[in-house]
Amino acid sequence: MTSAADVRPLRVALLGCGTVGSEVVRLLHSTADDLTARVGAPLELAGIAVRRLGKRRDLDVDEALFTTDAAALVARDDVDIVVEVIGGLEPARSLIVSALRAGKGVVTANKALLAEDGATLHAAALEGGADLYYEASTAGAIPILRPLRESLVGDDVSRVIGIVNGTTNYILTRMDELGMGFQEALDEATALGYAEADPTADVEGFDAAAKAAILAGLAFHTRVTAADVHREGIADVTAADVASAKAMDCVVKLLAIAERDGGGVSVRVHPAMIPRSHPLASVREAYNAVFVEAAAAGQLMFYGRGAGGAPTASAVLGDLVAVARNTLSGARGAGESSYADLRVQPMGEVVTRYHISLDVADKAGVLAAVANTFSAHDVSIRTVRQEGHGDDASLVVVTHTATDAALQAVVEELRGLDVVRDVASVMRVEGQR
Amino acid sequence: MTSAADVRPLRVALLGCGTVGSEVVRLLHSTADDLTARVGAPLELAGIAVRRLGKRRDLDVDEALFTTDAAALVARDDVDIVVEVIGGLEPARSLIVSALRAGKGVVTANKALLAEDGATLHAAALEGGADLYYEASTAGAIPILRPLRESLVGDDVSRVIGIVNGTTNYILTRMDELGMGFQEALDEATALGYAEADPTADVEGFDAAAKAAILAGLAFHTRVTAADVHREGIADVTAADVASAKAMDCVVKLLAIAERDGGGVSVRVHPAMIPRSHPLASVREAYNAVFVEAAAAGQLMFYGRGAGGAPTASAVLGDLVAVARNTLSGARGAGESSYADLRVQPMGEVVTRYHISLDVADKAGVLAAVANTFSAHDVSIRTVRQEGHGDDASLVVVTHTATDAALQAVVEELRGLDVVRDVASVMRVEGQR
Repeated sequence: MTSAADVRPLRVALLGCGTVGSEVVRLLHSTADDLTARVGAPLELAGIAVRRLGKRRDLDVDEALFTTDAAALVARDDVDIVVEVIGGLEPARSLIVSALRAGKGVVTANKALLAEDGATLHAAALEGGADLYYEASTAGAIPILRPLRESLVGDDVSRVIGIVNGTTNYILTRMDELGMGFQEALDEATALGYAEADPTADVEGFDAAAKAAILAGLAFHTRVTAADVHREGIADVTAADVASAKAMDCVVKLLAIAERDGGGVSVRVHPAMIPRSHPLASVREAYNAVFVEAAAAGQLMFYGRGAGGAPTASAVLGDLVAVARNTLSGARGAGESSYADLRVQPMGEVVTRYHISLDVADKAGVLAAVANTFSAHDVSIRTVRQEGHGDDASLVVVTHTATDAALQAVVEELRGLDVVRDVASVMRVEGQR
Repeated sequence: MTSAADVRPLRVALLGCGTVGSEVVRLLHSTADDLTARVGAPLELAGIAVRRLGKRRDLDVDEALFTTDAAALVARDDVDIVVEVIGGLEPARSLIVSALRAGKGVVTANKALLAEDGATLHAAALEGGADLYYEASTAGAIPILRPLRESLVGDDVSRVIGIVNGTTNYILTRMDELGMGFQEALDEATALGYAEADPTADVEGFDAAAKAAILAGLAFHTRVTAADVHREGIADVTAADVASAKAMDCVVKLLAIAERDGGGVSVRVHPAMIPRSHPLASVREAYNAVFVEAAAAGQLMFYGRGAGGAPTASAVLGDLVAVARNTLSGARGAGESSYADLRVQPMGEVVTRYHISLDVADKAGVLAAVANTFSAHDVSIRTVRQEGHGDDASLVVVTHTATDAALQAVVEELRGLDVVRDVASVMRVEGQR
């Protein structure tokens, strides 16, 4: 019997050698024997494309492997599989497309590209008969794409709710546990390296929106792009919002929600209150989790590290082994599944619930005026709590479900009411229907 | 372009039509169009093997599909794939083996058979070049086997800790939350249908041990059978144990633990205390969860319904789609991976920690005598708490890690000490090292 170590090696081109790429190199070396046994052939680095040569990298690899010509590396005849961890749209897209068209399997962690233009990548994969795997693009080390596209493929997924951005979850955890304001928590996250110098992509929900698009596409067999995702960040979440959530035994989280609703799907990212008894509520600090509801399976949750070099590299390696096995056996894994082709609903049609906190005049008739506003838009009130008096009088209203458009209209009208001094906070409530 | 509905159907033989089998039939019907699109060809029931014909089944299927001759059904030329949900060793094993040898892919939920004699099944799969998938055998609807055998295949798993039996988790949850005794909680679980009339397989840990063997085999690429698993049930867990756990801010769970340790692996099922801050602590009632630690990925957890017709059928359908896709494309999924062939350690060598509660005489020298016993076996004490006095005097000792053999020897010797009136409770402590 031939040993796996004697089989012709599969040669891997690595594009990018930053945090994730370096970890991929380290794991390829440190677990080489195991990988060989698991794949059925050795995995060998054919080359590493980087932006600059001569940069000090703490890696035990032959300097000759490094090149600045990524396109030439991808095109080389002795390259079987391409791992892309450069990120961003170009040159990543062109490199991936040419690899796939040439029949080379691709493993990528590039969420922005997949959410922006996954269709182009999938078309190239189909054209070249090649594998496109991207587990590392969403929720780091947490195996969530493979379960969605394979394990739950015989079930009907109705909803996916994810905490898929570690930076914002860290900030919101600190706000919840220590009563910090947003800025203070962000400053701490930056100091600790949980937030980047420019935190816009995380804080404004762009990162989560890309992941939401990828999750929604797989869950509902429909193409969804980042542009389809309604997006609100956490910069406006105040300590008072978090305290209000606490008073309701809830916690504020930045959620990526993809729902099947009527004939369509809705995909959105926004801060929301969820009950503390919900499994997602206990996901703290920089951890990620994805909660899935399916008709037969019921409620599932996948929890783990959503970012970082080693966790992301773990996901890359898992995909690399799968693509390598397929390459060896001449098979191809599951391709794009977009047959359902569902309509993506605009946010106004999405059915949700609001928690609204109002600073009001302390006089008779306030509650009636407020209640009339809700009923004028057919929004039904679940609870009202009156707090304080005089200049501190406030009303906290939690609604039943209604369309987001109706709820927005209510808020707009409340702002114009004489008896309402300020709409202090508006937040959606999720995880309890 | 040919539509998937026009491709020759793949024909499925269903063996068994109990709770899970009936749900499989229902899902095959209710999601037929989606399954066709996802597989690339229709899935068609070729026959359903049952023990007795004419039994009233609330299923909308042609009566002619039912047969009592399972072997003949499996052997039929028009059967492409076999789904086995009979359970038990025979005739399930013979049926699966003959299907696999004939090159027919098999999907099974049979944990007992896999844990007892997985090697025979995997050998038949290799011989016939056929797929053997068994996600439904462990933790119901939770996708855990696929992540272990595919997503984490590029990583080094160091530990798997599972709550994989819903009945015992329900009982322990009631004991924890309402202070019930074991018998009272078991009676309630039986009344509510969470426990079977004969609860032995659940309560004594046999069910969890089979799942532990399956998880360990996949995590460590080594053959593990149920006989390799050290097993203790929860029948001896008392309300006092649960209260002691509470006092330490811990909760008692029946854990299935598979660990990589030195040159070997250890696999065990026993009740243990885990800190309330551990992600597994919040897994309540009949839910299951599997916690995984891997070198690169870090900590992961998979959570969901571990039993029941629909959740188990969801896992069966996911596997069925995978096997059907492979059948269509002539590919084969990942087979058995047992190359690591690690030694399974006996329980005595396993490193763990103990929580020991002693009823002691209320006199000078007690603590010294007890401490001497621990130190004589090189077991180091982490905390001692002295409670009560007179006839109620007790000592609660929590150790640092030591081999289970050393800890057992300490307990044995404590039982013989004059100053110790009774060793009231002994329980392992997990999830904090």
